[in-house]
Amino acid sequence: MEIITEFIKLNTRGHTDIIDITPHVQDIISSKGFTEGQALVSAIGSTTGITTVEYEPGLVKTDIPKLLSQYIPYGPDYAHNDTWGDDNGAAHLRSSLIGTSITVPFLNGELLLGRWQQIIFIDFDTRSRARKIAVQLTGKKPEE
Amino acid sequence: MEIITEFIKLNTRGHTDIIDITPHVQDIISSKGFTEGQALVSAIGSTTGITTVEYEPGLVKTDIPKLLSQYIPYGPDYAHNDTWGDDNGAAHLRSSLIGTSITVPFLNGELLLGRWQQIIFIDFDTRSRARKIAVQLTGKKPEE
Amino acid sequence: MEIITEFIKLNTRGHTDIIDITPHVQDIISSKGFTEGQALVSAIGSTTGITTVEYEPGLVKTDIPKLLSQYIPYGPDYAHNDTWGDDNGAAHLRSSLIGTSITVPFLNGELLLGRWQQIIFIDFDTRSRARKIAVQLTGKKPEE
Repeated sequence: MEIITEFIKLNTRGHTDIIDITPHVQDIISSKGFTEGQALVSAIGSTTGITTVEYEPGLVKTDIPKLLSQYIPYGPDYAHNDTWGDDNGAAHLRSSLIGTSITVPFLNGELLLGRWQQIIFIDFDTRSRARKIAVQLTGKKPEE
Repeated sequence: MEIITEFIKLNTRGHTDIIDITPHVQDIISSKGFTEGQALVSAIGSTTGITTVEYEPGLVKTDIPKLLSQYIPYGPDYAHNDTWGDDNGAAHLRSSLIGTSITVPFLNGELLLGRWQQIIFIDFDTRSRARKIAVQLTGKKPEE
Repeated sequence: MEIITEFIKLNTRGHTDIIDITPHVQDIISSKGFTEGQALVSAIGSTTGITTVEYEPGLVKTDIPKLLSQYIPYGPDYAHNDTWGDDNGAAHLRSSLIGTSITVPFLNGELLLGRWQQIIFIDFDTRSRARKIAVQLTGKKPEE
């Protein structure tokens, strides 16, 4: 068994910007020649999220942002904002709720996801950010 | 260290059908002879969920479905439904929120869970489904 | 590659008591001499939570408890409470929603987290508890 660590770098718009990172993760698996194992996908930063979704505009542009705005609205009413003179309390709460990391298994070099299931990175912050996501592969290569 | 990939197959009723899959996962660990390691349990499909709960009827039949119905009700009011003529927008949102994967450590061949803590698969879709859940074990066997 | 399993023991106050366990996890990595790999952090018990957050009082003492109280209030109105004569139905629901486990990668012996991103354990139960959290490291040491 082997382990390798790579990084995906993204420029995001913030405000619950949702990006399909499945091709990036699959490319790392393929280029490193792993056949059976798992991809740990872990976002760096406390206003980020990682989960899976069917990546289509209805969910990604409307339903997910709307759901989160309904229950964790952006705005001034968070104690976090008082701590730092910040305006991103909602971004932190969304991040803690959704989580910043997922592990997805792969077999025969292919991620074990549903046909309509993609791995997404979400930037919850209230401004544009340059982001890093760690992708750590653990598993086997064919010669082993 | 070794890695193996197995699958659990389930027929579900959908509509937030909650199934205790702990015995399936424990059986795979025991039958493969792993002693120390971890079980990655990853559902395939974007209307599924994996988490842990005390598996008793009050929580499983009433409290969890009721909580989700209160904040993410099934129904027509999702942009996702317009995209596909679907009716399962709520199922996708619930899945992204709860998550589709968990990793649970084991030691001496036994899952490290609380006495009242079970691993559950949830089918959020709005119809019966045949489901596959990947279980990938990483760890050691006694001879190592 | 190697795997080792350790435990963090904590005495908590319950009622959504939020504890920064990042130093405990980092200490285990450092003391065991791992350089590249991942830390699976998995809480034992169905009224616990593990996630990440910026560990500052505004979020930890006010915003997170307030958010959860708004949507999943402590109190008697849960079917779970009827099952056992318990009063912690809300604690179970919060646990299933937030999740009880996270995996965080590390490189050069350091956890790959943001500067303001800490790993937290949350005790959602309605009383003081003695808790155990499993920390399982998988990865490489320098001599390998």
